[in-house]
This record gives sequence, C-alpha cells and structure tokens, in this order.
Amino acid sequence: MVASLRLPSLTSLLFPATTRYPATLRRTLSLRNRPASGFATASNSTASPETKSSEVDRLRSDRAVTPRSQDFNAWYLDVIASAELADYGPVRGTMVIRPYGYAIWEAIQEYLNVKFKETGHSNMYFPQLIPYSFIEKEASHVEGFSPELALVTVGGGKELEEKLVVRPTSETIVNHMFTQWIHSYRDLPLMINQWANVTRWEMRTKPFIRTLEFLWQEGHTAHATLEEAEKEAKQMIEIYTRFAFEQTAIPVIPGRKSKLETFAGADITYTIEAMMGDRKALQAGTSHNLGQNFSRAFGTQFADENGERQHVWQTSWAVSTRFVGGIIMTHGDDAGLMLPPKIAPIQVVIVPIWKKDTEKTGVLSAASSVKEALQSAGVRVKLDDTDQRTAGWKFNFWEMKGVPLRIEIGPRDVSSNSVVVSRRDIPGKAGKVFGISMEVSTLVAYVKEKLDEIQSSLLEKAVSFRDSNIVDVNSYDELKDAISSGKWARGPWSASDADEQRQKKLQSLPSPTEEGPLTIGVSIGRICGTLSCCCYW
Amino acid sequence: MVASLRLPSLTSLLFPATTRYPATLRRTLSLRNRPASGFATASNSTASPETKSSEVDRLRSDRAVTPRSQDFNAWYLDVIASAELADYGPVRGTMVIRPYGYAIWEAIQEYLNVKFKETGHSNMYFPQLIPYSFIEKEASHVEGFSPELALVTVGGGKELEEKLVVRPTSETIVNHMFTQWIHSYRDLPLMINQWANVTRWEMRTKPFIRTLEFLWQEGHTAHATLEEAEKEAKQMIEIYTRFAFEQTAIPVIPGRKSKLETFAGADITYTIEAMMGDRKALQAGTSHNLGQNFSRAFGTQFADENGERQHVWQTSWAVSTRFVGGIIMTHGDDAGLMLPPKIAPIQVVIVPIWKKDTEKTGVLSAASSVKEALQSAGVRVKLDDTDQRTAGWKFNFWEMKGVPLRIEIGPRDVSSNSVVVSRRDIPGKAGKVFGISMEVSTLVAYVKEKLDEIQSSLLEKAVSFRDSNIVDVNSYDELKDAISSGKWARGPWSASDADEQRQKKLQSLPSPTEEGPLTIGVSIGRICGTLSCCCYW
Repeated sequence: MVASLRLPSLTSLLFPATTRYPATLRRTLSLRNRPASGFATASNSTASPETKSSEVDRLRSDRAVTPRSQDFNAWYLDVIASAELADYGPVRGTMVIRPYGYAIWEAIQEYLNVKFKETGHSNMYFPQLIPYSFIEKEASHVEGFSPELALVTVGGGKELEEKLVVRPTSETIVNHMFTQWIHSYRDLPLMINQWANVTRWEMRTKPFIRTLEFLWQEGHTAHATLEEAEKEAKQMIEIYTRFAFEQTAIPVIPGRKSKLETFAGADITYTIEAMMGDRKALQAGTSHNLGQNFSRAFGTQFADENGERQHVWQTSWAVSTRFVGGIIMTHGDDAGLMLPPKIAPIQVVIVPIWKKDTEKTGVLSAASSVKEALQSAGVRVKLDDTDQRTAGWKFNFWEMKGVPLRIEIGPRDVSSNSVVVSRRDIPGKAGKVFGISMEVSTLVAYVKEKLDEIQSSLLEKAVSFRDSNIVDVNSYDELKDAISSGKWARGPWSASDADEQRQKKLQSLPSPTEEGPLTIGVSIGRICGTLSCCCYW
Repeated sequence: MVASLRLPSLTSLLFPATTRYPATLRRTLSLRNRPASGFATASNSTASPETKSSEVDRLRSDRAVTPRSQDFNAWYLDVIASAELADYGPVRGTMVIRPYGYAIWEAIQEYLNVKFKETGHSNMYFPQLIPYSFIEKEASHVEGFSPELALVTVGGGKELEEKLVVRPTSETIVNHMFTQWIHSYRDLPLMINQWANVTRWEMRTKPFIRTLEFLWQEGHTAHATLEEAEKEAKQMIEIYTRFAFEQTAIPVIPGRKSKLETFAGADITYTIEAMMGDRKALQAGTSHNLGQNFSRAFGTQFADENGERQHVWQTSWAVSTRFVGGIIMTHGDDAGLMLPPKIAPIQVVIVPIWKKDTEKTGVLSAASSVKEALQSAGVRVKLDDTDQRTAGWKFNFWEMKGVPLRIEIGPRDVSSNSVVVSRRDIPGKAGKVFGISMEVSTLVAYVKEKLDEIQSSLLEKAVSFRDSNIVDVNSYDELKDAISSGKWARGPWSASDADEQRQKKLQSLPSPTEEGPLTIGVSIGRICGTLSCCCYW
C-alpha cells in the first residue's frame, strides 16, 4: 500500500467505463413497496442515531433495497433513503444532508482538519459572493465555470450594478486577497484552507455525487517557486490518498488528469480515482498545481531576495461531501450501507434480547454495563433498548445503517457472562461468534481487534475487486475489449487530446456540458500508465 | 453568577444608548500613520499565528491603534486590522475572516458543538437556496426579512422560473423538510443544528458585528407541546449565557425581547445582551419560541397519542461570528486585543531574549524545553524565536494579539533555571513576576493557575464595568438622565409598543430599516426589569 501511495511518473492511457451514467435528476422514488407518499415517507426522523418508532413501522415493511446487481443506481438511492443519509431539497438538484450522513462527513472533516494543520495550513473564511468580473479574469477558468454559475442579481430589493457569483470555487477571491497580504518572499509560503459550501449549477444531479450545492474544504497556497508549489500539490494528493486508504478503506488510484480534464485554470491536476461497486470511476479528490495562471491574472506578486517582483506559484486542493457517496458505493451491499469502523458514527450496536419480563432487567443491566465499558474505552457505541421492536427487526435496521459490529445479549448470555458478536461485513452465521466474555478487558480488546479486522478486510476486498477489474492492454483492440467487458484498462497512451476525444465519443460518454467534465487519463507510477474514465464527474 | 444565569420573570423597561451607532460602511482606513495603500497593507499575512517578517516591518511603525477613548469605532477597526482578525471582502459589506480571527470562531464552535450534542441535538445540513415562495408563507417572517434578501435569478446561464433566496435563516426550508419527516408524536422531539453561512443584505456593515454574509449555527427543534418548546428555548439561551460567562468572560444579560424586537415569526425571543466597552449593547445570541407560526404556515403536523392531528411547537436559536466582535469590544484596550484564556488560540507566548551569539543556544534550548513542557500539559503555546525582531517589538506584537500570558527567558534566567511571566491583563511591572522555576511541574502549575486567574479577572472586570453603568430608575426623568449620561437604565416598563417607539425616536436611534432591527426591552429576573437598547443590531 505504501508503494501505491507513490505518485506517478505520468504516462496515461484512455479507458472509459462501458455504460453511460444513468444520472437521475430527481428520482420520484421508486423505493419499492413504499406508500405513495414516496421517498420522504420512508425516512422519517432526523434524530439519528436515535430510532423513532413510527419510522420503524415504515422501515419494517420497506427495509429491502433494490439489489445492487439489478440496478446499481436504484440501489444507491434506496440505501441513501433507508439508511437516512440524505433527502432531496426543495430546489431541483439540492440535497439535505441528514444527521447520519452528516456524521460521516464530520468524521471526514475531523481527520483531514488535523492533517491540514499538521502540515502548516490555517483555516480561514472567504465570502461566498464574488464579483462576476473576477471569474472572467482567468481565461480557462471562466470558460470552465461560466456554464454552471448561480448569479445573485438582486440584493436588498435592488437590482445590483454588478452581478455576483455564488462561489463555485474560490481561486479568484483568494487571489484578490492574496495580492493584499503578499509583498515579499518573507510572506511566503502562504497556506490556508476553508471549510465551506459551494454552488455549481449542475444539470444532472445525484445525492452526494453531484449536487447544486455541496460542502467541501478548499486549500489554497502561494509559494515562491514552482518546485515548492509542485511539492505542495503532491503532498496534498498524498494526504487524500492516505485518508482514502486508511480511514475510508477505499483503494483510490492517485494520478494525473489528462490535459482535457485538468481543472479550469490549473497547469497540472492530480486526482484520486476510486472504483465504485458498478466499476465506474469516481473522482474523489483533486489537487491542482495552478502555476502562475491566477497570480498573473490577478497580479499576485512578491519581491524576491534580490528585490525583483515575481508572480507567486500556487496550488489548490479539495475533497467534498461526494466522498460520502464514494463510501456508500464502494462498500455497500444488498443489505444496505457498510461503514469502515474508522469513519462509522456508530461502531458497535448492542441489541438486548428478552422474551419474558423477568428476563428484561438482567439483560438490560448487562447491556448497559457493556455499553459503558465500550464507551469508556473510546468505542462509539449505541444501545438499542427500545421494546417496540423485535431483535430481528433491529438486526436488519442496523445492518442497513452499516454499523460494523453488533453485540447481542440474551438471558443465556447473561448467565454465562458472555455475549454474541456479529460482523456486518460477513453475512450470516459465518460472521457470528458466541461466548465472548463480558469481562471488560477481554471484551474491549476483542471488540477493538474485530473493528481493526473489519477495517482491513474492507480495504482488502476493495483492493481485490479493483485489481480484478483492471486489465493491462497493449493495443487498441485490447483496450476496446476491456471496455466492452466493463473493466478499466491500463496501458500506454500518447496523451493526445484527439485520442481522448475520439475515445469519449466512441463510448458515448456524456459531453462535459451535459454531464460535467469527465475524468480521463489517470496514471499510476508503480504499475505504469493507467487510465480511467470517471463517469461521475 | 449562577443566580444571574436564571431566566427572567419578564418585566421590561426601555433604555437606549446615548449615541447613534456610527456605522461605517467601508472605512477607508484611517489606520493612522499607515502608508497610503491603507488597511490591507497593514495586515500582511494570513499565516497566523506565524509572524512574517515583512509584515512585522510594517507593524513596527504602525503598531499603535487609535485610543479607545478617542474613537471607539476607529479603535475597534484598528484592532481588527493590526491583530489580523479580518479584512474586507471585494463585495461591499463582506468580510474575510483571517486565520487568527477564525481560530477564535473555532474555539466558540468547539465548545458549543459539544453542548448541543450533550443536550440531544444532531448536526445536519440544509441547502442554502430557498424558493422565494417559502419566505412568503409566514406573514411576519417575510415582512422582517424581505428587505434584506439576496436573490439568485440566473442559474446555469438561464433566467430561473422562480427566484431563489440565499438563506438569511432556515426556518422555512426546515419546516418544508420537517413536514416530510414528522408523522406521529413518536417522531418528536426532533432536534437538529447546522453550522452554516447566512446572507442578509445589510446597509450598514461592520466587521464581525454586521456583515452581508456571516457564519453561525442555527438550531431548530419541533415538539409536541408548547411547554416543551418553551423549555427548549430557555435551555438554549441558558447554554449561551453560560458559554458567554464561562468561556468568553462576557457577563451578558439574558432576557426577553420586546414585542417590537421579537424575531420575525417568533412568539417569544430570548436574548443575551452584552455591554461593550463603549457601553453600547450587543445582541450576542437569541433563542426563539416560534409557537406554531411556521408549523401552521407549512402544515408541519403530527398525530398525537389519540390520533388527532396537531401542529408542532417549535424553537430556533443562533449565535454567530458576531461573538468575536463582542469579545474584542468587551476586553480589548489601547494595546490591542485581550483574549480570555479559554478561547485564546495562543494562551502563552514564549519570547527568548539574548544579545550575544554565545547566549543564543542556551536561551533557545531552554525556551524549547519550556514550550514542550507546556504543550504536553495541554497549554496552547507559541515560541517566537525569530531573530529578526527585538524582544520589545515581540512584546508589543503579542500584546496586540491579546495573548494572555508571556514567558520571557534570558541568559540570566537560564542560569537561575527560572523564567519571567507577564500577564496581558495587568500592564507594566505590576503584571510581571520574576523567578518562576523552570522545573516542569512547578511551571505548568503556575501557568495554569495564572490562566485561570486571568479568565476570572476578565469576567470580574467586565461585570464591574457593566454594573457600574446600569442605573436603577423610577421615573421618566431619571430614565432620561441615565440615558444622557450614557448608561443603561433598569426600571419598570409597561412594555407598550408606543412607549418603545417614542423612546427610540427620542434617542434618534436608527430605524430598523436603516440599521437593522433594534434590540429593546431586555429584562433580568434577578435584578428585576431592565431594559437595554442594542445599537449593534
């Protein structure tokens, strides 16, 4: 894995996924066997992880999601609804991130925020309203972004003299401010980050993957030399890569975008691309070496050690709430979500089981003790002690929510001072172990070990899925074969724009204006020259 | 203090501040003795708390801020610039929150986020684009907010069919979603919070205090009964009050807004009002009992235990980046910012002092050890070891930044294995203690004790300032006297709208449309019937 974290020597080749991404604009929800009121009815409480009983009533009959194999996209939307991750907002293409989905985003934020600070970046906040003229200053930036801008034209009841752009990304306003803060080489490097919402007027939207508004972090740095900027851009894609592997168990492929897919305004775009369960590629994070494009457009200059005025060299880098979608589509199965323990809002759910009232007290008291023991040991644990639901119902519910480990405690377990532990990632009896001692140190050690095992196991499974779906190709015919079998291809590529466009056309891939820019031409150093096509962006 | 946390029995009386708030739209900076390029030049690096030497060059000559007594508003803006808390954005009335200012906001977030979760609220995220028709649904809401809306009318290059409001607050969209999630009493209470940006087209702006866009948290809850909603609204204003006292050392006065000043759409608005250094009042946080106003407008209903449909009872509550402004204006002095240790990004700065190169190694090595010892003990500490600045310069610089404690280490201290400790809140020699042992446990204990002392001392000073500026009045003449001497008045008030309007007019207070709504009619239970007028909102 360490090796695969290395950044590529950039040889690239073209590989698009077979099927056209069936973007659904506002799926009017098709959560099968549901009451006519549809999507919203199926997900009835934001107060996750607390289960509300009326929602539970609905979920009981509606628990099943569309099988992944039958319709991956429908499965994805069903899981988002049933696991209460998100809902549609009233404006087309917008998304409400519900508490359980937001908690996953919080786990992502927590990890990255620390890493950014460790590497010398400070958080700050730029206004989201940007004068339209700013966007026009960098030629390829305006070309890339103008089709997807939201414009504020009225403020305080009056038509504005200059229309304002609702931030689609902040390079322009950042440079406007940097010109005021940067004067000499002593002011460099300037390294900042902001956690913010951004707005892009997307035509085809899909919860978490592509929405009109999304949450992200955007890092922006300015340096005295190209070398420093390049080092920073690579450092950040490496932090993202490590995060993806170690926290989310997603074996992303770090690489460099083709020229056509490079960020509007960047010289080089590094990317991490992830293979989803349907073998489509997801652009999960990017880091741009912006060269001097924005500093020339905005006049962001510094006096070097000889007193000469120079334009700064810049980077920007981002990951967004899209990552949550990547986690769902990498690990989920027909039973629902499957969360890697490190980013799971609830790592362990305890389900107490009793039949007679005489058993209840003993079972609940044991369950509470177990909960406290795990909580004190830093495990994120939930005790589901409602008596309005059967144990079986609860099992299914928390499986849908993707909780990595379940602890079952019944009257017999209480007598034997032990518990039953079930793994979410190994279905049925194979994942179930009986007779784990309730003794605190034993139980805590066992649970922690199992959580680690699950974390590793999810990554291994994803790596093996990824690698079994990448084919080495040496000719154009082999490339076409690989593509028609729905796999990714890895091989030499001239990196020509013409090749890339021809290939996109051949695969009937959506054009950038219809679907948003495509990701083509990821390459991996170690295994030399891959390419993937990202149909999600 | 515990007593003053109690919520009021609501008797209110009118008291406006004497002077009209001299709102400055875009102060073209007036940071005296500065180069012509002005404000931006004075603040040269976002990489706080790292000091950059070129910025330091500028600061050396420009360190002095306008004295508070001479022009409080100019002093406030100077401190924001010199302590590098914020800068102006390119769009009129917007603000860039710089790293040092943002770190204070992060400290606020960290504390409140935990308290919200402890009291059963979950974070989530609602889209910021709201259909205009939503705003119109609640009569007083649209009246209150329509003058200050930013409208998106163009998206993706096309004129939109329905114009969209950039979130000024989220009650409407929250209710739209709540109708889909709430069905029966089992779904209640529903208690959520979001950290977000909001946009209000303010005419008179001032960094942190009132900006076109600001950051805040907004809590939203739905309950089965009025009693529960009222309890929640009070609980949240109590959490804010405790936060203000214990973390920010601001002795806010919790109370209830007059009818005229109640939030547009609420039945009751609770508020915490703080007395700034110029004796103006600042509305620092609000908690609204919304009654059934929004649930009736949006049809947010639940089936009660008898199966009857009922409208939910709701609350909403918020604090914003304005709190940072409150901290500046409560504690700052002519030397700059003064931060309460609990929310200071840097609690202790270590300034090593040497003259000869032979002394340097010993001094720096001792300084590093001290830094590590404090850091390991959980103290937020900064070692300023640059050799481009004199110790005296550094003293002033970190005083401007409001760092609560300074540790000085020179060659003689190294020999005697001791340090000198200076308090930011006690100027000159009186705040300086020599010969504190470098021995780790002694030093750590001393530093922690001093930080606690400073925290308490700032609160005491603010309480005493506040109380010496509140006058008990028993007649209208006494009220007028109090006001003309620039104080707050406390006394009986009929709570009539007519009285309030007359009083506002008498004091030439800005009208709500010009300046934003005013805060009138805060009352305190313990000291019975106060009222203040908040000129900052």
